[in-house]
Amino acid sequence: MNLFYYPAACSLADHIALIETGLAYKLLSINHERKTEDGRDFLSINPKGYIPTLELEDGVFLTENPVILNYIAEKSGKLLPKDGMIRWRTLESLAFMASEIHASYQPFFRDFPEPEKVRAREKLVKAFAILADQMGDKKFLVSDEMTIADCYLFWVLMVAPKSGVELPENLRKAFDRMRALPSVIQALAEEGLG
Amino acid sequence: MNLFYYPAACSLADHIALIETGLAYKLLSINHERKTEDGRDFLSINPKGYIPTLELEDGVFLTENPVILNYIAEKSGKLLPKDGMIRWRTLESLAFMASEIHASYQPFFRDFPEPEKVRAREKLVKAFAILADQMGDKKFLVSDEMTIADCYLFWVLMVAPKSGVELPENLRKAFDRMRALPSVIQALAEEGLG
Repeated sequence: MNLFYYPAACSLADHIALIETGLAYKLLSINHERKTEDGRDFLSINPKGYIPTLELEDGVFLTENPVILNYIAEKSGKLLPKDGMIRWRTLESLAFMASEIHASYQPFFRDFPEPEKVRAREKLVKAFAILADQMGDKKFLVSDEMTIADCYLFWVLMVAPKSGVELPENLRKAFDRMRALPSVIQALAEEGLG
Repeated sequence: MNLFYYPAACSLADHIALIETGLAYKLLSINHERKTEDGRDFLSINPKGYIPTLELEDGVFLTENPVILNYIAEKSGKLLPKDGMIRWRTLESLAFMASEIHASYQPFFRDFPEPEKVRAREKLVKAFAILADQMGDKKFLVSDEMTIADCYLFWVLMVAPKSGVELPENLRKAFDRMRALPSVIQALAEEGLG
């Protein structure tokens, strides 16, 4: 499978999941003219124009981070239980991080006016408190086993300093633990962030 | 199962899905003091404070619209194929509508400053064009069979006029077709929107 990505962008979550599950993958970056590393027009691949985009083995393209992560888990049989509440809490956490946290980073990524940043910070403080409560003293966000939610969580926590919002202590520690995982070390190195 | 909702809010998607799948449900609204219709403190049920929230039969609470819809489909065996690309396109469409469309309604729901509304409208125009392309001349968004994506789509299209963005013709027609479905007629009536 090919993962279209930008270094350090949210596609890092999928990159970590691909390594962690042992699926074969190739990384393809996109340049400023929206050409992919292998010379294709990215907008004809994904008219939405954003990453991550996953090219499946039959040449079909899949988009939306929580769904690509779900697909990687299903394909590999790893990082997401087939049923039970751990499954639903994992999917719930992915949706929450996408709509409440990732979306609230936009004012910082794109330098929106200060009042929008203030509002985003208020939202982020609440959202991180929810995640911290959820994590408690578990090893990973949803249980003591890693799930695809942790792949996205790692990126979400890595980006948090851009917002100026301080992370709760258990999330900071979770980030440090994940930073030391072989899959995360490899993903960061492959994106030139070693 | 109990669905915590506000009339005409995005919980309408789950309400339609519950009716369409034939699962037993009870609707519970929330008042301005965050008390549920049956006298409980809503923030102790869902600390995020937002709807939809689904109370499962074992008293567990599930949140996040795309995930509640996925749960309803899984529980009923309806509105989402077990595997294949229709499944992934359905989940992808739900994630897209949540992050690109629903999120872009915030400036209109909460009367944010005009520049934010302008930016949101630009995003909505693009997002509706993506949905219109995806729908083409099919009966429903992902295929000629209804999926949980259509339950959310109905709400997304119902709210569009608040943004002042005009819908592409095939989406307007899809809305009119869905508006005539027995499940949609029943859901609107039960929310007092008949």
